Parts: sequence; C-alpha cells; structure tokens
Amino acid sequence: ERKNMSACLCLLFLFFTIFAEATYPPGGFHHLSSLRQNRKSSKSKSELPFETRYFPQNLDHFSFRPESYKVFHQKYLINSRFWRKGGPIFVYTGNEGDIDWFASNTGFMSDIAPKFRALLVFIEHRFYGESTPFGKKSHKSAETLGYLNSQQALADYAILIRSLKQNLSSEASPVVVFGGSYGGMLAAWFRLKYPHIAIGALASSAPILHFDNIVPLTSFYDAISQDFKDASINCFKVIKRSWEELEAVSNMKHGLPELSKKFRTCKGLHSIYSARDWLMGAFVYTAMVNYATAANFMAPLPGYPVEQMCKIIDGFPRGSSNLDRAFAAASLYYNYSGSEKCFELEQPTDDHGLDGWGYQACTEMVMPMSCSNQSMFPPYENDYEAFEEQCMSKYGVKPRPHWITTEFGGKRIESVLKRFGSNIIFSNGMQDPWSRGGVLKNISSSIIALVTKKGAHHADLRAATKGDPEWLKEQRRQEVAIIEKWISEYYRDMKE
Amino acid sequence: ERKNMSACLCLLFLFFTIFAEATYPPGGFHHLSSLRQNRKSSKSKSELPFETRYFPQNLDHFSFRPESYKVFHQKYLINSRFWRKGGPIFVYTGNEGDIDWFASNTGFMSDIAPKFRALLVFIEHRFYGESTPFGKKSHKSAETLGYLNSQQALADYAILIRSLKQNLSSEASPVVVFGGSYGGMLAAWFRLKYPHIAIGALASSAPILHFDNIVPLTSFYDAISQDFKDASINCFKVIKRSWEELEAVSNMKHGLPELSKKFRTCKGLHSIYSARDWLMGAFVYTAMVNYATAANFMAPLPGYPVEQMCKIIDGFPRGSSNLDRAFAAASLYYNYSGSEKCFELEQPTDDHGLDGWGYQACTEMVMPMSCSNQSMFPPYENDYEAFEEQCMSKYGVKPRPHWITTEFGGKRIESVLKRFGSNIIFSNGMQDPWSRGGVLKNISSSIIALVTKKGAHHADLRAATKGDPEWLKEQRRQEVAIIEKWISEYYRDMKE
Repeated sequence: ERKNMSACLCLLFLFFTIFAEATYPPGGFHHLSSLRQNRKSSKSKSELPFETRYFPQNLDHFSFRPESYKVFHQKYLINSRFWRKGGPIFVYTGNEGDIDWFASNTGFMSDIAPKFRALLVFIEHRFYGESTPFGKKSHKSAETLGYLNSQQALADYAILIRSLKQNLSSEASPVVVFGGSYGGMLAAWFRLKYPHIAIGALASSAPILHFDNIVPLTSFYDAISQDFKDASINCFKVIKRSWEELEAVSNMKHGLPELSKKFRTCKGLHSIYSARDWLMGAFVYTAMVNYATAANFMAPLPGYPVEQMCKIIDGFPRGSSNLDRAFAAASLYYNYSGSEKCFELEQPTDDHGLDGWGYQACTEMVMPMSCSNQSMFPPYENDYEAFEEQCMSKYGVKPRPHWITTEFGGKRIESVLKRFGSNIIFSNGMQDPWSRGGVLKNISSSIIALVTKKGAHHADLRAATKGDPEWLKEQRRQEVAIIEKWISEYYRDMKE
Repeated sequence: ERKNMSACLCLLFLFFTIFAEATYPPGGFHHLSSLRQNRKSSKSKSELPFETRYFPQNLDHFSFRPESYKVFHQKYLINSRFWRKGGPIFVYTGNEGDIDWFASNTGFMSDIAPKFRALLVFIEHRFYGESTPFGKKSHKSAETLGYLNSQQALADYAILIRSLKQNLSSEASPVVVFGGSYGGMLAAWFRLKYPHIAIGALASSAPILHFDNIVPLTSFYDAISQDFKDASINCFKVIKRSWEELEAVSNMKHGLPELSKKFRTCKGLHSIYSARDWLMGAFVYTAMVNYATAANFMAPLPGYPVEQMCKIIDGFPRGSSNLDRAFAAASLYYNYSGSEKCFELEQPTDDHGLDGWGYQACTEMVMPMSCSNQSMFPPYENDYEAFEEQCMSKYGVKPRPHWITTEFGGKRIESVLKRFGSNIIFSNGMQDPWSRGGVLKNISSSIIALVTKKGAHHADLRAATKGDPEWLKEQRRQEVAIIEKWISEYYRDMKE
C-alpha cells in the first residue's frame, strides 16, 4: 500500500488507461471507452450520407517478406456530392476508432465541402473498426498487432489516396488532409512525410510534442487543474482535497461498501482505485471538451462544462464533504441525461482481445505523465520501468519511447521547420489539456498555429451550430482562408 | 530465338543485371560485379584512417512483432581527427556494398573535413558488407531478405546518428548527409524524411526520378549512346552495327567456338548473350565514369575513357569488322592493365546466396529500361511481365513498382518541392547516363541542381587530385560554399 495514492491517468483522446501500479490488474489495463460507445449515436442533423468502400491494402509496406503481401480490406467513406473532377479532395486521416464515428464528429469538413466543391474521404486506421488485417484475431497477440503503427497507417493513406485519384482520373486534384487528436498528429505527419500527396494539413489538437520529454510530464494534469482553477479557486481546492477523503473513507472499516453507497455503484466496489479513476476520468474528459458545442458528444452539456461542474461544487453548503462534491460534479458528466440509476465504476474487461490504443501507447505512442503537487490530482511520479513491465506483461512488447521523435521529429521543432516544410495548421484550444503538447506558435509563414483561449479538444472540427461563439467562428474562417490559399497557390503553380 | 537480340541491361551503379528473356538463366540473374571486386584496392593516398564500430540496430523499425526486436550489428566507420565537440558531423549514407569501399571512394568528405572541422561517419547499409542481420543466412530467402529496403535503411541511419550524437554529448551538432548513386538517393530522401536529423544533403548522381515512368525508359541507354556519338559519330555507328555481326557469327556453324576465339575467352562460351552483355557492360560502365579522375576506380584510364575507346575503334583500318572493333574497345575497359591473358565472359554464379541489389531491384528499386532504335544498343522493349516473373522465380517476391514514388515522391517534383523542403544539392554529370534520372534544374533557392556537362557518375565525391579540371574544382567549391551556408544558418538559428 506504499504507493496506494500514487497514481495517474495516462490517457489519449477517447480512451484512457490507468497506470497505477497498485491497482494494475495482472495481465490487463483498464480502459474506459464508455464515452465513445455510449455517445456515438449523437449524430448531427447536417450529417452527410457517405458511401462505404473497401480498399485492398498490403499488410506491411516496409518489408517484403511473404507475409508482408497479405492483403486486408481498409474501410473508407466517400461523398462526392459537391465534387467535380479536378477539384480538391479533403481526406480525414482516421485515428483510433471506427471511421463512421470520426465522420459523424467532423462536421467541419462536410460544412465546408460545398464551398470548395470538395470530395470528402474518411479513411479508417488499420486495426480499428472494420479494418482489421486478421479479422477477429487481429488483437490477439503481439504477432498480429505488430503491424499496427502510425507509419504503416500513413503509408496506407498514401497508397489509398493515390489509387483513388487514379481511379477518379483526377490525379491533379489537390489533397488536403484533416485530423483531430491522434488523427491530427497523423495529418501533420502526413504532410511532412508525404508532401507529394497532400498539399496541406489541418492538424487539430495534435499533441505531437507530447513525446520524449519535449513538454514537461506534468503539463497535461496541470492544464486540467488550471481549467478548474480558472472556473473557481474553491472548486479546484475541493477536488484537490477530495482524494484524501476518498482514501480516508476506504481506510474505514467497511470502507468499500461505504464508498459503493456514496458513489451509487450498480455493483459492490472491489477497489478504491476504481472510484478514484472514475472521478479523475470525469475531470479529464470534461476539461478536454471544455468548450462543447451542440454538435459535440458533450452536447447535453453545451458551453463550458467545467464551469457547470464547478457551479455544482461551489453550490454545496459550507462544510460539505469534498468527496461528496467531487462525486456530484462527476455525476454531471456520467449522468448528463439524468437517467442513470446507478454507476458502473468497474467495467468488465473487454474480451475482444487487446485494445489497439493501449497497444500503440505501449509501442510508439509513449506519452508518460506525472501529476505535480500543484495539480488538483493525487501526486504521481511517472515510473517508466513499471510502465515498461506492464507493456511487456500485457502485450509482450517493449516500448520504443524515442521512436516517434526519431521518425517524426519534435525536438526544437521551431528551428527544424523554420526552413523546412510548409502548409500545416496546428489548431489548439487552451482549455484542452492536450494543447500543452501541441504547436502553439507560428513556425513559419505557412506553418501556422491557431490558438483559441476558450477552445477545447478539436472543437473546430465539429459541425457548425447556431450557438457557436464568435471566437470559434473566427477560427474556422481563418482555417478556411488558409486552405483556400493553399489550393489557389497549388492551381497557380500547376499552370506555370 | 524470336527475341534473341531483344535484350537490355538494367543496371545500377556497380552491379548490373541482365534482363534478357532469351538468356535468362532459370533461377538466376547474371551479375557482373567484377568491376567493384577487381578494383576496390585502388585506394587514394590521402585516405584517412577510420575506426570501425558496430551499432546494435533493430531488425524492423516499422513493426513491433517479436521478431522486429531482433538486434543486428550495423558497421560504421568514424574519424574524429578534425572534429571538436559541437562541430558538424558529415555522414555518408551507405549504399549497396561494403562501407569501406565507399569510404575509400568518397575522398571529397575527407578532403573538406579539416576546413569544416567535421566528424566523418560512414554508415554501412543493412544487408551489405558486415551488416547482415542474419549472418550468412541473410541472403538465403525472401523471409530474411524481406527486411532489406531503403526505408529501413534510412531509419537505421536516423537512429544511429541520434544515438551517436548523444554518446558524443554533441546533440546540437549539425549533421550533413552525403551519398552517391543509390547512396545519393538515400541522402536526398533522408533530408526529406528526417529534416530534424540532417540539416542538408549532398546527393551526387542520385537518379531519384528513374522510377515509375517519370523519365522515359529509353533515357539511360540513349544517354550512353550520346556520349559515344559526341566522341565520334563513326564510333557510335560501329558499335551500333556490331550487334548484327555478333549475331551473324553466332549463327554460323561452330559460331560459339568462333566467338570464344574472337573474344579471347578463358573458357568456351555457352551463349551469345554472354558476349553481348560483356560488350554492353564495357560501354555502360565506361560512360558512367566518363570523366574519370586519378582517384577513381577507372584511374588507369584517366580523362575521358569514352574518347579513348572511340580512338581505338576509329583507329582500325577502313573495312575492319565492327565486332572486332567493339571487342577491342571493350578490352580497353576489361584489360586496362594489359595483364589479362583471357577474359571470363561467363562468371560463375555467386554461391553466397541472393544478391542484395538484385533483390532491391525486384522489390522497390524498380527501374525498367528500354533501348530505342536510336540508341547504339540492340533495340529492346521493356517487358514488365517477364521482369515480374523473373523476380518471383529468383527471389519469391512481387515488385512494387509504384512504391518509391508513393513513399518518396518524384512525380512533378518541381512543384511539390517548390514550397516544401530545403537544403539539398543534386549534383549530376551529364556524361553519366544516370544523370537522366536526376534533378537537373534548381527547384527552389535551397534545393539546388549542380550540373556539369563533362562530369560523370559522382566524380565530385572522389578525392581531389592535382590533375582535376577547372569545372570539377568549381563544382566542389560550390558544394563547399552551399554546405557552409547551411551550417552557418543553422548556428545562427540556434542562437535565436
């Protein structure tokens, strides 16, 4: 129990993974993907109909062993309603999930397609959704999962786009890539590695500097803490103090049943850590989507959900338990509809096999995090060795923590890209803790950082709604103007 | 015998491969690597002593299967005599052969190291020299050879350089990459894919456009023909007519023994094609090194060896046999020392296993060629299907002919790189037939083409000699000036 509170969440985007040694279940990480699964049905009304297609893709682009030639079918969505031959092609570089979900949640591309007369293409990332090279066995072992990584995914996109253009007899069409989160990293990297295929990239909320100690390990949780502090100092303090109370309750005789009652769990709790992680998850996700539009998966809490949480916390009478307040705030997130009768804090382990993102986080997407004493979370010193051991025991792989910065760069990015590369927009909202790993300053005249103080995790990629604030409209206008510039420059260069 | 003369050489750099269907030996390509093996001992006097080191490298950087983590030892050479910490690092991105050989033949880097106070590093390409991941079994099958390709090689270089800089506590040192031929392609691609690791590249005689029909298939043999035509129209005509005579002799009763006698072969000839390929090889290589410096492997024929061949051809009395003349010219190449008593036209098949370059040519380095009617060679229409079949039967692999242009670009390179990338010198000598697949025009203010009319295959990378002509000295001066600019710009940017 020495390290019983020394825990920290290591999360990316939609999934998150608990790296708490004390709670780490032998042979399995926790994954709270409920957010995605529960709310994928929230479709925007303006959503375009997409045609679903499948593209035969080689398993391994970077080797020529007999197995490399194995073909799998990569799913992609296409809408050509606004397009005419020779016109632009807008490609979403799919990230860690079903591509339909990203298509539904990236209304920005559909919104601007008519103006650009653009073809829309959403490509699913290998090993996610239906694009599983070994079918149901894809996630069974290190042997099959071994082909899941970002470079293979980028090569998939390059090959698919090139083939698509050829089939459309539109090889001179300019391609612009779009992506949010990990998909945003892929979009930026795609422009850097495949400039001959994409003329530019909109990389929204892409934490490409969240590797190899480029940004401090504490930045992520510090940013979340800042969001809450900005909403209310008291709120920040209440949450910060709640962890001790949580521990105190659990240390009581009959602590766990007590906690179950307090947290209205559907089943009896087995571990204090489930409760802690459940609370932390609520704060993390709420910060990420702070700001949420009506077209967002946080739609039931439009506006600034952190403020709403803090209103609940601050609304308690003086002297109320900090833990009760923190629970009430978290309930807002988990029970936005008001229809949950109880909470499932301990999700049954997914028996579909190893999850893709957890595997990627254990191989190349190594983003270690710590919680500083200044944050509102339980302090946690990152323990890289423990992480490495967990990866080995769970997936049978050894992480390559320096690989992403070797392959894609990141260190001293301002000087490297000052005289190299062009046509990338890095958009970030400072409410989103991932912004701290993003590019927040212009690097050159065409590698641009668009930063909104009030923006959250790729809010710009969501469909426009009537209630959108001016700063969000302005951000999207800027994005459209820059993309227009790339395209007209491209056509001008073509004529020369 | 339908296609008995429809043959063409498909060669790269030091090795060359015969793609003549009619002569194609079941299960094996011909490889005439004698040039390299016979002449590797010609070391320049100014040659620096290098320390040999070995770096533990992962077998597969682009997958995370258990086998990917297999470690092999990559050889590299290092000389730090002129270097001080923080100073530049000049890296040769090794190509298809022992790295010692490239170090010996790239005197330019040693020549300029004192001026730049540069560290010199020559890295061996995986699967060549001593850098064989599976030891002697490396070349045994498609399973082991599968890991041989340019992207893995570039990743090897990136990882090794980064680790080396760290070990030298000199992480801020600017790295410039150098390479000739395939090594030049690797240098250019390295700068494009790893701008965060190399600040610039000197890509000498790098035919990066010799893929996927970017340049006409006939350009290579047309360029050689042009070299001979420029030396002497008569010489060109003699060679062009010699093929018919060769066929006529072989069609005679006792044709092959007759041919053996004519060609002074050490053993009786089994096929007319050996004689034809032997002749073609002499013309191809001589054009490639036309111009040859004293520090060149063509040293015994300094100056313009094509002219010397043509002098021999033109010196025959009127009415002499064209074939005899062509043979005499080829003898100059194969017997420059005058000590050969007979010629080995039919080399025994290398029993060391599958050769690396032949494999690369059958997977990614697909550079199909044809011989036009206007060339001095036997006309040949490229037969892609036959090539594909040969690759399958020899190596068990299916070529990916569009892969290099998908991965590295090349099509419309001027417009793609006009607004993307920087700091590459593409140097080419127009005597070299590979120049036709090179970048021959400036693309931007820092992606520069240095073209010399009289230059040959990466003559600029050779050690300087007293007899060097002014155009060669001037070319090297320009290269030094451009590299100086990159480095001072880099240090200036660092200070900002």
